[in-house]
Amino acid sequence: MVRKFTINRIKNLLQIKFPIIQAGMVWVSGWKLASAVSNNGGLGLIGSGSMKPELLKEHIQKCRVATDHSFGVNLPLLRGDADELAKVIIDENVKIVFTSAGHPGKYIDIFKKNNITVIHVVSSLKFALKAESVGCDAVVGEGVEAGGHNGLDELTTFSLIPQLVDALKIPVIAAGGISDGRGILAALSLGAEAVQIGTRFAVTQESSAHINYKNAVVNAKDKDTHLVLKKLGMARVIKNKFSQEITEMELNCVDLETQKEALSSKREMKGIFEGNLEEGMLEASQSSGLINDIPTVEELMKRIVTEYNSAYKAIKIL
Amino acid sequence: MVRKFTINRIKNLLQIKFPIIQAGMVWVSGWKLASAVSNNGGLGLIGSGSMKPELLKEHIQKCRVATDHSFGVNLPLLRGDADELAKVIIDENVKIVFTSAGHPGKYIDIFKKNNITVIHVVSSLKFALKAESVGCDAVVGEGVEAGGHNGLDELTTFSLIPQLVDALKIPVIAAGGISDGRGILAALSLGAEAVQIGTRFAVTQESSAHINYKNAVVNAKDKDTHLVLKKLGMARVIKNKFSQEITEMELNCVDLETQKEALSSKREMKGIFEGNLEEGMLEASQSSGLINDIPTVEELMKRIVTEYNSAYKAIKIL
Repeated sequence: MVRKFTINRIKNLLQIKFPIIQAGMVWVSGWKLASAVSNNGGLGLIGSGSMKPELLKEHIQKCRVATDHSFGVNLPLLRGDADELAKVIIDENVKIVFTSAGHPGKYIDIFKKNNITVIHVVSSLKFALKAESVGCDAVVGEGVEAGGHNGLDELTTFSLIPQLVDALKIPVIAAGGISDGRGILAALSLGAEAVQIGTRFAVTQESSAHINYKNAVVNAKDKDTHLVLKKLGMARVIKNKFSQEITEMELNCVDLETQKEALSSKREMKGIFEGNLEEGMLEASQSSGLINDIPTVEELMKRIVTEYNSAYKAIKIL
Repeated sequence: MVRKFTINRIKNLLQIKFPIIQAGMVWVSGWKLASAVSNNGGLGLIGSGSMKPELLKEHIQKCRVATDHSFGVNLPLLRGDADELAKVIIDENVKIVFTSAGHPGKYIDIFKKNNITVIHVVSSLKFALKAESVGCDAVVGEGVEAGGHNGLDELTTFSLIPQLVDALKIPVIAAGGISDGRGILAALSLGAEAVQIGTRFAVTQESSAHINYKNAVVNAKDKDTHLVLKKLGMARVIKNKFSQEITEMELNCVDLETQKEALSSKREMKGIFEGNLEEGMLEASQSSGLINDIPTVEELMKRIVTEYNSAYKAIKIL
């Protein structure tokens, strides 16, 4: 199908210079990371998934002090206290919300009444059409190469994005496996109007992830991530003691109750925030093999724009 | 990383106008499909995986009559009669071989002695470095979105390609999930110097697949393929009665012997060549949702070049 759109709709919608969005990530993206991305031409997102409502309020207020540019909040809809988090977002006058992990219609009326731009994260065409039909302004199409929780359908970025672009009227943002400028160019080639980048931003100076976690991503090679917990909330993580144990249980059809016990709670905090490399969950993208340093956000943004333009100039007409 | 290469190496190596290779596919790509692709500016491959040596010989001879352009043969190295197939390739003076499913060094000395270009299909960095070290001229990096048999590492095209490009000196050809011109542009953006396209060419007039198989791909949507047989030769297929049954066995940890019995032989022939939509294996890409018709190869090649150029023109510098 011949390309329908240009990247300008997302840049206009979010008031950003570059079509680059930093994913909201648990234990990683507070006001420091989000404001740094927004100050360097992208869109920063505060990840509310690991915050109590009071803490989210504090991060929004600090982010507003730290940047004059637009920023947003990621809201996982299945959170038990999602109502309170949504209230904080509205009360604090946040104007951009990325919703995930739940029905996109959940707060759409109240968000729209408050002039909030709502973008929903999807992993298949069905959920994307649902998001469009309830009034979302755009979708993030997230491929199975993405770090952290992702869709059970296991659609890859390469397959998912053009199928969304062909079916939707609203803009599509590509996520999953994008860690450098080449990946941005590839995503826009497939018809996306912007990209959402997670793990690469998690491994920056401004990220609040533990240094052990950041080094684990830097050291990871192409085959060092895998999908775990297919029946208890699927996530892509760096292979470690915990993830190998839970994988063994899955492969051997150990019952779900036993798996749940082994999983226990706070594995993400343990891995990403506390840097426990054996017992924690180290959520990371399959493109971790492309991540080899821990730059500042300013360095990183300059680099990926340079990489994009270099790749762009190397491509010719057929 | 800043892009190192242009697409010219593969075009020169294979003597083709467009950097587009038609994958060698069992029951699909005989001389008719291969010569049609070569006659329209790409590289056609005869898929020897479903042929006895005598039949391969016949297809090579017919292909040579049908096109003046270069063409090649795909050789699955694990085949029991691989020695005989390799001998046919050499005796019939074929100058391009794509090897897969086995150790890339298996016939490299004899092929090189006969001035044959050897390109190996890989699913991870380790195998790619191995292919380079034994003297292959290029690799095909195949992501897990590809139809048919693929690597257990489940690396996606988006993650795999740039990691190969950064690590190798020889050119990288991208495969998996590429069905239109946008996909080609995306693959070249990631640093590939050409693409290998399978399912899209399987659904053309010149493909020897059964019309029922072609229609099944045309009707498939984004979520209609899955990976089966993870322990017995993993393959991506369109979901059907057989694939759902074998998936149930895998999920319930049914022993491998029982799975093998249920698998029996000739499931690929049954599905792809005989068009048995319930009991056959319908190998197909995750991008089947992008395939909506059964064009001639000439129509298809013109269309994807137009799509590529349209997508190219829509992309801007950042």
